[in-house]
Amino acid sequence: MPLGEAIFTQRAIRRLKPDPISDADLELILAAAARAPSGGNLQPWRFVVVRDPDLKQKLAEYYVEAWWHRRSAQGITRPEHMPKNNSSGQAALHFTTDARNYSRAAVLIVVCNVSRADNVMTACQNLMLAARALGMGSTITRLGEPVDERVHSLLGIPTGVDADYCIPLGYAEGHFGPAQRKPLQELAFLDAYGTPGPWHLQP
Amino acid sequence: MPLGEAIFTQRAIRRLKPDPISDADLELILAAAARAPSGGNLQPWRFVVVRDPDLKQKLAEYYVEAWWHRRSAQGITRPEHMPKNNSSGQAALHFTTDARNYSRAAVLIVVCNVSRADNVMTACQNLMLAARALGMGSTITRLGEPVDERVHSLLGIPTGVDADYCIPLGYAEGHFGPAQRKPLQELAFLDAYGTPGPWHLQP
Repeated sequence: MPLGEAIFTQRAIRRLKPDPISDADLELILAAAARAPSGGNLQPWRFVVVRDPDLKQKLAEYYVEAWWHRRSAQGITRPEHMPKNNSSGQAALHFTTDARNYSRAAVLIVVCNVSRADNVMTACQNLMLAARALGMGSTITRLGEPVDERVHSLLGIPTGVDADYCIPLGYAEGHFGPAQRKPLQELAFLDAYGTPGPWHLQP
Repeated sequence: MPLGEAIFTQRAIRRLKPDPISDADLELILAAAARAPSGGNLQPWRFVVVRDPDLKQKLAEYYVEAWWHRRSAQGITRPEHMPKNNSSGQAALHFTTDARNYSRAAVLIVVCNVSRADNVMTACQNLMLAARALGMGSTITRLGEPVDERVHSLLGIPTGVDADYCIPLGYAEGHFGPAQRKPLQELAFLDAYGTPGPWHLQP
């Protein structure tokens, strides 16, 4: 798939088929992730590919707990509290009102970070673009408190290694296609912050 | 260009030709960056494309100062102090022993972040992959202390907006091609941290 098609049709995909991913495809996706640039070439990422159904279900429950924990801090404790115009929050409810929609993913990839000097997002983006090119959908989800210790224990992740993100990955049931983005004029400037450049395209 | 070719031949490119980048190519690269995913679709990134030669030169001097500032904290105060086996550090000396090698880039793109709740690296990776597909080279460099206030002032970046990264972008003088990466077996595990998966490919 051309790079442009992968980039311009990538969107968060949460409706996933349970169909398995071949070892060869999984390896290619992980190798693409591992090619990403990092400061000082530290390559701080480690990936725990969770395929075991019981582990996936536990991890799904932890994710849902962490998600509601963060939302309750914003006063959102039930699905109907999520503002209708928060399209990203509305979409997340597919996972967080039924953990089985999350554990149904063929694999859950927990992305760890062994160095707080850098972050793992370039690798996550390579991973998701490679998945997109192979017809698979994904999105980055956050773990963290209050389930952090249980995630570490479940997967044997050493203390001192962060395990903040999890990417549910599988063949897409939903459609790929453009997601909503701000106009480029609001995001990109020429020679001074706020000065528009000669851009006309919408992202 | 196929996605796989872009991902598997991306490497940090610091030897850049001064040849200008067309507005259309620049816009496509920025639009690709703006398509990146972010938590809650916040799109925290803002890009200041610096094309003015005087601004580029100032920014290059700030970058070099910030780089040596961080190195001096590690006891590296002269080029000959950089360990020979630190290939990333050795490569950076091309910029940091002569700021003109940095300011020579057709544009310097300062990547700002308006939200500390997320980071800008998915957008940086899209930007650099799109540049790669168009035959351009780039690398992520860090600004920050002690030049942070001067960078903000130079480009009119509001207080409260981070401006930690700068991507020098231009047509590549050096070669693209595989960079050194760890074996996938050290980076990716199956069902438990440290348990090897069925991977054979090298990244």
